[in-house]
Amino acid sequence: MFLKRVQKMQAELSDAGVGFAVIVPGANFRYLTGHAMKLSERVTMLVVPAEGPPALAAPLLEAGGLAEMCGIEDIFTYRDGESPVDPFRRLVDASDLSGPVGCEFTGLRMLERDVVSKAIPETDYCDITGIMGRLRGVKDESELEAMEEAVEIVEGVFCDVQDSIAPGVTEAELAQEVKMGLAERGSGLVYTGSVASGERSALPHAGPSARTLQNGDLVWFDVCAEYGGYHSDLTRTFGVGDIASDLREAYEVVYRAQARAREDIVPGMAAEDVDALCRRYIEDAGYGEYFTHRTGHGLGLEIHEPPYMVSGDTTILTPGTTFTVEPGIYLPGRGGVRIEDDVVVTQEGCRSLTTYPRNLLPDD
Amino acid sequence: MFLKRVQKMQAELSDAGVGFAVIVPGANFRYLTGHAMKLSERVTMLVVPAEGPPALAAPLLEAGGLAEMCGIEDIFTYRDGESPVDPFRRLVDASDLSGPVGCEFTGLRMLERDVVSKAIPETDYCDITGIMGRLRGVKDESELEAMEEAVEIVEGVFCDVQDSIAPGVTEAELAQEVKMGLAERGSGLVYTGSVASGERSALPHAGPSARTLQNGDLVWFDVCAEYGGYHSDLTRTFGVGDIASDLREAYEVVYRAQARAREDIVPGMAAEDVDALCRRYIEDAGYGEYFTHRTGHGLGLEIHEPPYMVSGDTTILTPGTTFTVEPGIYLPGRGGVRIEDDVVVTQEGCRSLTTYPRNLLPDD
Repeated sequence: MFLKRVQKMQAELSDAGVGFAVIVPGANFRYLTGHAMKLSERVTMLVVPAEGPPALAAPLLEAGGLAEMCGIEDIFTYRDGESPVDPFRRLVDASDLSGPVGCEFTGLRMLERDVVSKAIPETDYCDITGIMGRLRGVKDESELEAMEEAVEIVEGVFCDVQDSIAPGVTEAELAQEVKMGLAERGSGLVYTGSVASGERSALPHAGPSARTLQNGDLVWFDVCAEYGGYHSDLTRTFGVGDIASDLREAYEVVYRAQARAREDIVPGMAAEDVDALCRRYIEDAGYGEYFTHRTGHGLGLEIHEPPYMVSGDTTILTPGTTFTVEPGIYLPGRGGVRIEDDVVVTQEGCRSLTTYPRNLLPDD
Repeated sequence: MFLKRVQKMQAELSDAGVGFAVIVPGANFRYLTGHAMKLSERVTMLVVPAEGPPALAAPLLEAGGLAEMCGIEDIFTYRDGESPVDPFRRLVDASDLSGPVGCEFTGLRMLERDVVSKAIPETDYCDITGIMGRLRGVKDESELEAMEEAVEIVEGVFCDVQDSIAPGVTEAELAQEVKMGLAERGSGLVYTGSVASGERSALPHAGPSARTLQNGDLVWFDVCAEYGGYHSDLTRTFGVGDIASDLREAYEVVYRAQARAREDIVPGMAAEDVDALCRRYIEDAGYGEYFTHRTGHGLGLEIHEPPYMVSGDTTILTPGTTFTVEPGIYLPGRGGVRIEDDVVVTQEGCRSLTTYPRNLLPDD
């Protein structure tokens, strides 16, 4: 357990009037315990009361690993085929817990809610995403070091793959090169990278297809790596051969919007202000309707985590906060551009963790 | 959309008195639509009414990809920063839907439940895991082919790595070899394989550590691959050098229990009977208390899916049903053994999709 993190969380739970929090395997579980356990159909719940020691309800076969990794003594177990309701009820009784129950709405499933509601009927559920987001948003030195390692992995992958970007290669082949690079370079997360070219690059979340790159295409790579639990998330858009002027202009607009936002970020600014910086520039250039997503998202133990760089997120950015800056322009049927860097807020402004070049063509 | 699958599901929803089902990105989403979308903080809900065409509530930036991949016309969208409640409410109104709401308890999160409950307050939620499990449990030829490809990938990885199993190598180095093998051999799922040796092999779910293999160790590899959305899941236990008689005896017991279960499986048997086959043999040999988990689990679009080979799961096994057979014995402080094959129920018995040898030592 990271005791200081748990204590900070408990102070926040008390302030919010939450009786206890239920954390399922995932980013918050790892943040509090250091244990990278996967969410599965076997219910595992870390219970953090507003006061007192945390406890676990978990499958018997996980108990040994959990005790070793989390250093928690109170583990209430059940065997395969048994219900987790009884051990959870014993846990609640042993610590004399009562609601409201705090949980992360993006984490807790009906499966765990059902267990909680059987042990404590009629309780209220509070979303503690905001509490956990505040705790996790600001990174310490060791977290930043892990993120920089994760950035270095993706930048290495981009170096590996950049010479393969040419007419005749398919998106799928490039995505396989990305995957091999992530595996070789020690990323914990290894997957078929997002690669989209030509008219497909106008779909912001397109996966790789059998499409063959052609002269005149834009092609973007959106690639994440994981190191020590922490993530990087980078996008670069490359030009294949001769790029038509409309695509080149879209690229220039995204490039300048993104660079300007990185220059203008200062501590004390709200997350939504980062979005406004990019959006205003792109709107003024006449491309507002083609910038169809938010400007970025928090980054750390999760690839997407609070704060979100979007209108309505008023989280104040303080030094140590890490997030992506990734404006894009998507011209249906023509092509899309996105440039994504990972940044950390400093005392004076912000620092990009990513240094890979941002030119459209090798000679630009 | 796979229309026949949707129609079968709708018939089951009607029978169960469910008004409509909400499916989030994941295995069921892919099973029904063919689209491999990731679950994220951006709410995406496939709505399957008991009668009438399916519809989607989804983020605007996913709409293009969803329309292309799912062939669904009714997509109710929201932009980043907007709430998904309004589009979901419009979807419900447009199709005149009412509860009870069917959802998979291992899938739907508080995030989606909150959206549903704001649009339809006071509705009941039914767990449709059983319905979806029945639909997905029996595989057709193309699904089996994908699973066999996934098995072939892991068997290839075992061939790659078997010569490296020797005193002096670390679990982490072996796990990295597994990862590279999965990436090279085209597995969609690429991760650091589970490798545990010596006393650590007595933890059924241990991940790889910096531990160095020593003469006399047992070491097991539990490795999954993914091909076309379908999974394999294999475990093999290897002996390093000279194996003490107590560990060799434990191995023999697991080997015989597992082989006997595969021989005795017949259609019409219940899932829990498979567990009983292995458990009785291991108990009779005096190792019952060291077999701390169920005998297996369904396998397909998910690595763990219904049915479960565990006391209490009375699902009748019919031809085409795929699952793992993976008894184990874990002797605390000494070492552990698990042998895991992937099998499919046939008209006469069962067929193992896995053929990799099951001997403890190369010369056994």
